[in-house]
Amino acid sequence: MTSIEKKLQHKIDFKTKPLGALGILEKIAIQVATIQNTLSPSLQKPTIIVFAGDHGVANDGLSAYPQEVTYQMVMNFLAGGAAINVFAKQHNITLKIVDAGVNHDFEPHPNLVDAKIAKGTQSFLREKAMTEAQLEACFQQGKEIVNAVANTGCNVIGFGEMGIANTSSAAMIMSYCCKIPIEKCVGRGTGINDLQLENKIAKLKMASEFHGTITDPIEILRTFGGFEITQIVGAMLTAFEKNMLILVDGFIASSAFLVAFRIKDEIMKNAVFCHQSQEQGHKQMLAFMKADSLLQLNMRLGEGTGCAVAFPIIESSINFLNEMASFESAGISNKE
Amino acid sequence: MTSIEKKLQHKIDFKTKPLGALGILEKIAIQVATIQNTLSPSLQKPTIIVFAGDHGVANDGLSAYPQEVTYQMVMNFLAGGAAINVFAKQHNITLKIVDAGVNHDFEPHPNLVDAKIAKGTQSFLREKAMTEAQLEACFQQGKEIVNAVANTGCNVIGFGEMGIANTSSAAMIMSYCCKIPIEKCVGRGTGINDLQLENKIAKLKMASEFHGTITDPIEILRTFGGFEITQIVGAMLTAFEKNMLILVDGFIASSAFLVAFRIKDEIMKNAVFCHQSQEQGHKQMLAFMKADSLLQLNMRLGEGTGCAVAFPIIESSINFLNEMASFESAGISNKE
Repeated sequence: MTSIEKKLQHKIDFKTKPLGALGILEKIAIQVATIQNTLSPSLQKPTIIVFAGDHGVANDGLSAYPQEVTYQMVMNFLAGGAAINVFAKQHNITLKIVDAGVNHDFEPHPNLVDAKIAKGTQSFLREKAMTEAQLEACFQQGKEIVNAVANTGCNVIGFGEMGIANTSSAAMIMSYCCKIPIEKCVGRGTGINDLQLENKIAKLKMASEFHGTITDPIEILRTFGGFEITQIVGAMLTAFEKNMLILVDGFIASSAFLVAFRIKDEIMKNAVFCHQSQEQGHKQMLAFMKADSLLQLNMRLGEGTGCAVAFPIIESSINFLNEMASFESAGISNKE
Repeated sequence: MTSIEKKLQHKIDFKTKPLGALGILEKIAIQVATIQNTLSPSLQKPTIIVFAGDHGVANDGLSAYPQEVTYQMVMNFLAGGAAINVFAKQHNITLKIVDAGVNHDFEPHPNLVDAKIAKGTQSFLREKAMTEAQLEACFQQGKEIVNAVANTGCNVIGFGEMGIANTSSAAMIMSYCCKIPIEKCVGRGTGINDLQLENKIAKLKMASEFHGTITDPIEILRTFGGFEITQIVGAMLTAFEKNMLILVDGFIASSAFLVAFRIKDEIMKNAVFCHQSQEQGHKQMLAFMKADSLLQLNMRLGEGTGCAVAFPIIESSINFLNEMASFESAGISNKE
């Protein structure tokens, strides 16, 4: 335990409650306060950034929805009609949408950041998803976007994604980064049936054979990643440099975190895993990183919805630490 | 499925998200909207009532804390320093404190309801915890308190408790109501050590032998219940009559719900189990009622803290149902 952790534990242990009785809220309080190196942490200008991108593999029959849904959902985010809009509004979380590489020409919009790399990746069934230059550009965009958010005074940031077929990307990244057979990483995504799932597994197995062994996390990302996933990796690494609290969403956002973690494992200390997705690989991916999720609500939506729904619980952790009375100040008898 | 449930499912299935992708939030939305018999439910004047009472068994060495902590914590609730104060304030939940039978004379206070039955129950190690008249008075008080809250326009109500040694009461109620051996119902409460736990189990086993078979849930309650637990049973039954959404907290509040459920099993349809306590019997108690909890945050504090921390997630359920766009309104392609 560091000195600040000891002081925090002491502060928490003298709050008017049995030792440890606030469970995970106590852990989160210690984590956030340790990151901020203070006994009185705060969450400033909470922000969620949703990165959207299209995938070459979307046209290979891996998703239940057509590729055009990616751009249509971006329009929905901008119009305020998606789940993440509702939850971000509920908790006063600033929401930014990033076009990381959607197959559509958008009109300018105040909430839309244009970071388009190309109109979708190449299909990793036949080639690398992106070039080295595209990968670099993604990292650069992710970095610039987070720097701009940090300049608003934000110290807690969540990342969401939208991209038809991106559970396939995430499953490949997981399989390669964790060395877990692809069939254990693949799930039903937006809701494919048994036959479609068999097909998805078969095609992703072929992709594994086609690309063979790759161990470098950045090369794994370049081979299978979407532009949205890759920009999130860059964004997370920058958020860590800026010492922000990083809210990790579901399966796809966690696959981005997994790459960031493989690049720089200290990032773990700034991360809160908000929700364990119903997508079957997520549980094992979290276990690989020895990470526990705050919530298990059987959601599988992405968009950063897990971050937004979990946010008030993170706020509760900070609030009890800052606002609860101590045994002494309340005049209460401690344990006999 | 009733007609309203069908209409709700249809409304949810045309929201801009994959089918079922909001998981438990969808279930909660359907539950609340069905109770309120509307496609656009709302949560009005959310209220948590914390019932406090003392227990004869507190003086038999069953708790880690002395009995005086019950009244001291009531003072803390009234001063705003407890965990439930912090979380209720965070979510704009009205908080009421009830003296159901604390061993202390309180000065009048605007947030304290005087419903004192006596200055603590009798020890169920040697006799029934309360008389029939006291049990009746508890039910009457619980009813009047909820009626008064209902008159403010409240349609969502949570119940918390404070009472040194009341995990022993709750464990006995669980053991008798669920026919589960007492040692599987007993836990560490506020944090007793191994030796104290052995002693707690031994004494509660003796209480089981002393009282023998009891099957009537009301008689179980009279034998082992605290005044706070018994008033909560009455309060929950009235909340159900008033068709409120009932937020069930942790182990002790759930033991009150268990008795209410044995009296009137339809109450289940109005109940949301907010948090599964770290107290070891709670998981099995929920399983007995085939109930799932919304959160598992390893808390074990009572006071209604589980209800308060879970409340924003229940709000999220209502919000997505009321505010999200449909595929049609957003112009989004549905599944292929």
